[in-house]
Amino acid sequence: MFDLIIIGGGMAGMTSAIYALRENKKVLVLEKESIGGQITQSPKVQNYPSFAEISGSELADKTFDQMLALGAEFEVEDVQKIEKEGKLFKVTTDYNTYQAKAIVLATGMKHRTLGLAGEENLVGRGVYYCAICDGPFFAGQEVAVIGGGNSALQYAIMLSGYCSKVNVFVRSANFVGEQALIEKVKNTPNIEVTYQASSIALNGEDALESITFKRADGSMFEHRTKAVFVAVGQVPNNKMFENLVVLDKYGYIITDENGKTSCDGVYAAGDCRVKAIRQVATAVGDGATAATFACRYIDLN
Amino acid sequence: MFDLIIIGGGMAGMTSAIYALRENKKVLVLEKESIGGQITQSPKVQNYPSFAEISGSELADKTFDQMLALGAEFEVEDVQKIEKEGKLFKVTTDYNTYQAKAIVLATGMKHRTLGLAGEENLVGRGVYYCAICDGPFFAGQEVAVIGGGNSALQYAIMLSGYCSKVNVFVRSANFVGEQALIEKVKNTPNIEVTYQASSIALNGEDALESITFKRADGSMFEHRTKAVFVAVGQVPNNKMFENLVVLDKYGYIITDENGKTSCDGVYAAGDCRVKAIRQVATAVGDGATAATFACRYIDLN
Repeated sequence: MFDLIIIGGGMAGMTSAIYALRENKKVLVLEKESIGGQITQSPKVQNYPSFAEISGSELADKTFDQMLALGAEFEVEDVQKIEKEGKLFKVTTDYNTYQAKAIVLATGMKHRTLGLAGEENLVGRGVYYCAICDGPFFAGQEVAVIGGGNSALQYAIMLSGYCSKVNVFVRSANFVGEQALIEKVKNTPNIEVTYQASSIALNGEDALESITFKRADGSMFEHRTKAVFVAVGQVPNNKMFENLVVLDKYGYIITDENGKTSCDGVYAAGDCRVKAIRQVATAVGDGATAATFACRYIDLN
Repeated sequence: MFDLIIIGGGMAGMTSAIYALRENKKVLVLEKESIGGQITQSPKVQNYPSFAEISGSELADKTFDQMLALGAEFEVEDVQKIEKEGKLFKVTTDYNTYQAKAIVLATGMKHRTLGLAGEENLVGRGVYYCAICDGPFFAGQEVAVIGGGNSALQYAIMLSGYCSKVNVFVRSANFVGEQALIEKVKNTPNIEVTYQASSIALNGEDALESITFKRADGSMFEHRTKAVFVAVGQVPNNKMFENLVVLDKYGYIITDENGKTSCDGVYAAGDCRVKAIRQVATAVGDGATAATFACRYIDLN
């Protein structure tokens, strides 16, 4: 029997563990893939306060060590369902069944990829999914954005502030997003938009060199660039909890500001919940808050 | 003319600066006392993800260096008022007047002290104001709590989970707080409550040794303890902004989850805003979010 089971070993989940362990709770962290989550894909993190620069992997490793030193139990197992039985939660993974008094869901999300050959190999070497995080590395340079929604619009506006030029490629004939953002993109001189352009190849061995696009008429063209910011959506991973907690239409967990979900005793932290800004800094804030509330719940129930 | 002026150089304010600077904004941070805020009073921080242990001062120094390296301007000046003039903000300090397109308020708060002689000298050496932060250093030991409200009740419950005994001293004849917390405190065997006890002296040179209390009848008694958690209230410092943004009845700035205040272009981050959990981890989350929204505001206005 655990006090708290945390689903997900990214920065939000690990921070939740640190907070609960310091309150002397018995804590199990379940992670289905590898420790650290999203951030391990960022070779250079420059916006985690206190480090001028650190690799995402190192940041995750340090936090993992911290969590283990405080006494966390940790298993690499894939959670298949969580059921509330009376006041307790039964967590079923691919290998085991566990019981806990409270749950923190910290399953993160993934950026939707273009699905092109070699894309995974070019991540962090020209292909990026977060302009807030990685845009500043290309200050003064020309960059590309792929996408047609609010995220792509925001990326373009943000990047246009410090990049020499931003080339936006939209698959459809129009953006689908907030009108104010669309107007701003259209009126910004160093943003150029190409509509009806579908990316079909990422070119480059060790670093991105160019992108091949296909037009609506089937003709193709190559766009040379060292950096593309892909904003074609995000994929949360909460389907298995849809009977436990209320999700929004995109699959994110709906919580209040403190991570409280629709189910008493279940909290959510980090990228997996409905929130505006998904960063390491906000993930650790979420983790601290959700775990503190989970501990209060445990103490009073 | 600055893009963004940040009021307060604690962890929330510095994180705001890091985020805005990485978006190439011209940023001024104004701090009235010293860099780092509250956390610099904690000699041992064990719950900032990635550091098993770091002093609050070192954490603040590292973040300050990171912020300066990114190009922050920084002045030690006391902000006296902020006025919105058209779309711009005029910030008046004790020395200068500045203009900015947007503002982040990150003024923090202070824990109310007991106001006793020698108290300041014993902070971190037996006198603590945050049980979440410093309670775990006394696991297995006997500790004291002073206070009669929800914070004192929560501290007592939390500490009772891992301390051998928690002695709570309440000045009044009763607690004033949530009934569920009061019940829990009364029903927890290792919590002992003494009512109508006013602290009048903290005894000890280099470390707390005991506390002298005065009873309602004027008689006195000494309670030996190595650690007291003081929960007698918190003092925000936002009075000078009361005509700019809406404050709650305690003086905290009311925002949405993203730090947006009642005034367009003004955001708030960290301990100064209405929020449940005031920690370094939540301060940096707030800073990242508020600054990102402030930058979007600047870009679109």
